[in-house]
Amino acid sequence: MKFKQLKGSIVAPRGFLASGVFCDIKRLGTGKGSQKGNKRDLALIVSEAPATVAGMFTTNQVCAAPVKVCLERVKHGKAQVVVVNSGNANACTGRQGLKDAREMARFTERALAVDAGLALVGSTGRIGVPLPMDHIRAGIIEAAMLLGRTNRHADQAAEAILTSDTRPKQIAVEFSLDGRAVRIGGICKGAGMIQPGMSPTGRRPASQPLHATMLCFLTTDAAVEPKVLRTALQEAVAQSFNRITVDGDMSTNDTVLLLANGQAGNKPATHRASKTPPPTFQAALNHVCLELAKMIVRDGEGVHRVVTVRVSGAKTKADADAAARAVANSALVKTSWHGGDPNWGRIMDAIGYSSARVVEHKVDIGYSAPGSRKILWSLQRGQPTRVSFKQLCLAVAPKEFELHIQLNLGRGSAVIHAADLTEEYVEFNKGDVTDPTRLGG
Amino acid sequence: MKFKQLKGSIVAPRGFLASGVFCDIKRLGTGKGSQKGNKRDLALIVSEAPATVAGMFTTNQVCAAPVKVCLERVKHGKAQVVVVNSGNANACTGRQGLKDAREMARFTERALAVDAGLALVGSTGRIGVPLPMDHIRAGIIEAAMLLGRTNRHADQAAEAILTSDTRPKQIAVEFSLDGRAVRIGGICKGAGMIQPGMSPTGRRPASQPLHATMLCFLTTDAAVEPKVLRTALQEAVAQSFNRITVDGDMSTNDTVLLLANGQAGNKPATHRASKTPPPTFQAALNHVCLELAKMIVRDGEGVHRVVTVRVSGAKTKADADAAARAVANSALVKTSWHGGDPNWGRIMDAIGYSSARVVEHKVDIGYSAPGSRKILWSLQRGQPTRVSFKQLCLAVAPKEFELHIQLNLGRGSAVIHAADLTEEYVEFNKGDVTDPTRLGG
Repeated sequence: MKFKQLKGSIVAPRGFLASGVFCDIKRLGTGKGSQKGNKRDLALIVSEAPATVAGMFTTNQVCAAPVKVCLERVKHGKAQVVVVNSGNANACTGRQGLKDAREMARFTERALAVDAGLALVGSTGRIGVPLPMDHIRAGIIEAAMLLGRTNRHADQAAEAILTSDTRPKQIAVEFSLDGRAVRIGGICKGAGMIQPGMSPTGRRPASQPLHATMLCFLTTDAAVEPKVLRTALQEAVAQSFNRITVDGDMSTNDTVLLLANGQAGNKPATHRASKTPPPTFQAALNHVCLELAKMIVRDGEGVHRVVTVRVSGAKTKADADAAARAVANSALVKTSWHGGDPNWGRIMDAIGYSSARVVEHKVDIGYSAPGSRKILWSLQRGQPTRVSFKQLCLAVAPKEFELHIQLNLGRGSAVIHAADLTEEYVEFNKGDVTDPTRLGG
Repeated sequence: MKFKQLKGSIVAPRGFLASGVFCDIKRLGTGKGSQKGNKRDLALIVSEAPATVAGMFTTNQVCAAPVKVCLERVKHGKAQVVVVNSGNANACTGRQGLKDAREMARFTERALAVDAGLALVGSTGRIGVPLPMDHIRAGIIEAAMLLGRTNRHADQAAEAILTSDTRPKQIAVEFSLDGRAVRIGGICKGAGMIQPGMSPTGRRPASQPLHATMLCFLTTDAAVEPKVLRTALQEAVAQSFNRITVDGDMSTNDTVLLLANGQAGNKPATHRASKTPPPTFQAALNHVCLELAKMIVRDGEGVHRVVTVRVSGAKTKADADAAARAVANSALVKTSWHGGDPNWGRIMDAIGYSSARVVEHKVDIGYSAPGSRKILWSLQRGQPTRVSFKQLCLAVAPKEFELHIQLNLGRGSAVIHAADLTEEYVEFNKGDVTDPTRLGG
């Protein structure tokens, strides 16, 4: 399905405003860090009227204070404001952290004269450092004054939520629902500690695989009641953010929030009318989430190559997922992708130690261009094909390609959007212990 | 328990001979590879008389031909020779691979005039390339002629089994059993694709965690019957090789073999006499395996720092193991170790997404020197202590240190011997696709 692309991301849907400001959350200003000193670090996303809300949250048991506050608040299905800071995750900050996250929400409500309970919070950055609440409050006041509905306002909000990302990530689409033009927009951030496994409750379903901070904030002017919105968001996240990995580390702060303010004037989508969300709405939301998720992988820390790992023919869906994640998170497979090396031996090794059922002499492994059905098979039924090494090297040379693994055991399939592992990733994450802003965690 | 250290590793026990030769298994000789052209690549380990044997093998479902052959043969509990090549793993080589591994064993038996069925095989190196059997046969003939019982012979065998290792790994100890001086010796190799999870049957116990090629060959002159030897080896491997990780990738070829020829003249250890192996023998075997396992981690690909991760107070032993492996295999934790950064936030994140039960405000995290009981706590009950960042940096600066994670939820504990993740690891494993010897896998 094709959607009309719009500019303005989160302010493209009617009735939404945004802003992004610098309030020095990392408390820089001197020394090495000062060059980043004026990167925006606090964003506001505001609906003119209270909106329906749904959220998906990290299933990490060590879960940041803003996630806990959102979990409490989204239950009621209503929200009007999202306040987000970068530079500090407010994770592993104990009772003070929880107090700070609630204060951040309440202060925003007061600054915007919004009803109590209608502000949600998001944080990303260093773990284990208390939020500098004086900076946060000053930032909220400034951001409230600067709210607007132009593309520039959305750009500034998209910039303010970034950490090690090299560029903002934004999208907006328009489609027709009940004869009305409906819009969905979103911004997100990622870069490192990326293998989200989110659920609506923050609890991990038994069936869910265990797996950065990624934050995503979505707006729509569609009228959708909370239960339907939640179903739609869960479905969209399951096939997008929960299917990406940069480094295999699931963050303490992963959060996706979707606000629907109903200003498009469509007939409200209710659970009573249909247990599944309107198909066009679901398709558009899936598209928005998948495009944002892929932007996160492409802009992952040190990432040179993006690989879509497609496992099919697994005994079960869970098996397909396990095999795909084993390959997508194998240090040896990821370094071979970086080297442009079609090393199927490492791929066979990884599926072999995964929890998926694998029979060596049944496995096919091949490559294609993104979205292409023309697969170049390097291995069929466990045996190398006559395709030359040079041809295989050409297949894995592009910045993006697809890896196809057919287990020939059943009908289970899964897709994981993965990245290579590069010297830059190591260089970046080994950090600099002489950097004064690292103190504490 | 202290053991007398001896030189000569596998030939230290009475009645064992060894040799290591170069037979050009990688088929080099020209171009880039020629500099490695004369590294020994085929080893023989021979007992003067048939010996009792026990083995532990990779639980990877994609399992190399030599592992399959060993699995068939160790069942009988008797062996006299081990023939090992490096440079080619004989993995993912289909029926031809299995035929080649069997031929390698039979050819060795004939060359040494040993009874059929008494030779075991090991291979390590590239996956997916047929064994160059003409080179292998020539190598076996030469190695058979050069067999000897001096330390130099053991050194040459220890060298011949290496791949990306930078140095040979050897040990031998002596202890007293029934008033007799008994010896155990061993050689091993590791470097990359290291997170063994071996079992005696190659089948994965439901309780066993999923997790390079590591090969280890052990000799002893103790008299131990097969069932007792197997119990002893399983126990020794469970607390050594199955508790190390370099890169989290479990190989297709992991193998440990132990030959016991009884020449020490002790009273044979039988299952009827005692269901558990003689305590001194078990302790000595545990010591030998743990020392060899640690040598593998220290010489892992690109490894700068070795960290012993000790998780205690977990709800169950399986929980402790899961938490320790999540930390030991987290790209973010491993890069912080490389950077000398005591980043407890990343450690909290990793235990939080592990399958272990974790309660944030109960967790203690600390550091000590290897084997020291003096722990410097960075986090207690989920809260940062007053220990300064500088002090913590000093604690993680040495080439080896211990990380203590106390979950305070129960009595489950586990230890994993882990390594950092460096630019050199990535550089080495991204490989060089222009290298002609890489063709095929």
